[in-house]
Amino acid sequence: MVAISLDNPAVQSYIVYTAILAVKLLLMSPLTGFSRVKRGVFANEEDAKKGGGKVKFDDPVVERIRRAHLNDLENIPAFWVLGLLYLTTGPATAWATLLFRVFTISRIIHTIVYAIVPLPQPARGLAFMGAAFVNLYMGAQVIMYYITAI
Amino acid sequence: MVAISLDNPAVQSYIVYTAILAVKLLLMSPLTGFSRVKRGVFANEEDAKKGGGKVKFDDPVVERIRRAHLNDLENIPAFWVLGLLYLTTGPATAWATLLFRVFTISRIIHTIVYAIVPLPQPARGLAFMGAAFVNLYMGAQVIMYYITAI
Amino acid sequence: MVAISLDNPAVQSYIVYTAILAVKLLLMSPLTGFSRVKRGVFANEEDAKKGGGKVKFDDPVVERIRRAHLNDLENIPAFWVLGLLYLTTGPATAWATLLFRVFTISRIIHTIVYAIVPLPQPARGLAFMGAAFVNLYMGAQVIMYYITAI
Repeated sequence: MVAISLDNPAVQSYIVYTAILAVKLLLMSPLTGFSRVKRGVFANEEDAKKGGGKVKFDDPVVERIRRAHLNDLENIPAFWVLGLLYLTTGPATAWATLLFRVFTISRIIHTIVYAIVPLPQPARGLAFMGAAFVNLYMGAQVIMYYITAI
Repeated sequence: MVAISLDNPAVQSYIVYTAILAVKLLLMSPLTGFSRVKRGVFANEEDAKKGGGKVKFDDPVVERIRRAHLNDLENIPAFWVLGLLYLTTGPATAWATLLFRVFTISRIIHTIVYAIVPLPQPARGLAFMGAAFVNLYMGAQVIMYYITAI
Repeated sequence: MVAISLDNPAVQSYIVYTAILAVKLLLMSPLTGFSRVKRGVFANEEDAKKGGGKVKFDDPVVERIRRAHLNDLENIPAFWVLGLLYLTTGPATAWATLLFRVFTISRIIHTIVYAIVPLPQPARGLAFMGAAFVNLYMGAQVIMYYITAI
């Protein structure tokens, strides 16, 4: 086992990509908000009153952004925890950093092709799978490494 | 870089506010549950059968609580990870503690004015933005601090 | 306070159960995906075109899996953070490990009886409460331990 040291370049890489992913996730809220205002569709009466629109739950553009947002919630927090635990198994720095980069870039592409410039499949599917592979790989490595503690 | 030491008052502050936010988030489930039973609206046949109500997905009160819950999921886990990473950048204790307090109080107010005693805007908007500012500020600080590890 | 040491068996137990829960959570996505393909119901036009089905948001089987997935998001990330913080309060190894096991098994049962082999209540309710008890117990312990840092 390898302690998490802030001097370790793999740990620093984990930190910066984790923060980038968190900011990217948080920016989905204003993206939804701007889209709601632009299209005049809101989820609450008080918002519709203030924004001069109406309450509507099936606007295709807004719902698409919301699905992208939910998909982030289904994948990014798992990365945060698996990435950290994976570092305790002592991976090579270059390999760990590559995994973190692939995950981060995949999730950014996922949002772009899902919610910003919708593209035909398999664009979104490939971006999803690139990130999911990294998560599942790290999860399997962590489980195998610590399996005796089960 | 600053190691995360449990003797550090800022770290202890992070821990207690993180735990308060986790409990607050978890309490959204019974809040939804009580509201479902009271209003007799459920998401599953087996629940409606047990609770003596019907399956319904557009009850305004229940859906409002569910939106507040989802909004928590969109913001609180990001705080957990950004708050921890922010501590590694060595912020002043009083400043970090203030940020954690602002975030926690903003999220509690957000839930109250969204799901418990619905208030006109901008009540919810301000509570949302208070917490979002803290998250985005910490995220930007962490990214700038570790940018060379990108 | 007790530093988080990777040599501590309770910490190793936390790590392996956290990773198992993360993988379990991630597998909800392919479970949803297979169910969508099998039933020919999709959330996006581009997916329906590729999969040869139609866009539909109220398929009972798919929506049931999605509710199980969302319920995971409402409970598992809170475990990740509360379990780690709880370890800093120095619990007995056997007790902490028991809590982690109860949480993990409860969440796996929850998914099975919710989304895979739907059972009448109180099957799902008991599984939910087993996990929620562990989370709320750990949250209360952490808050009481660090309450002076509030």
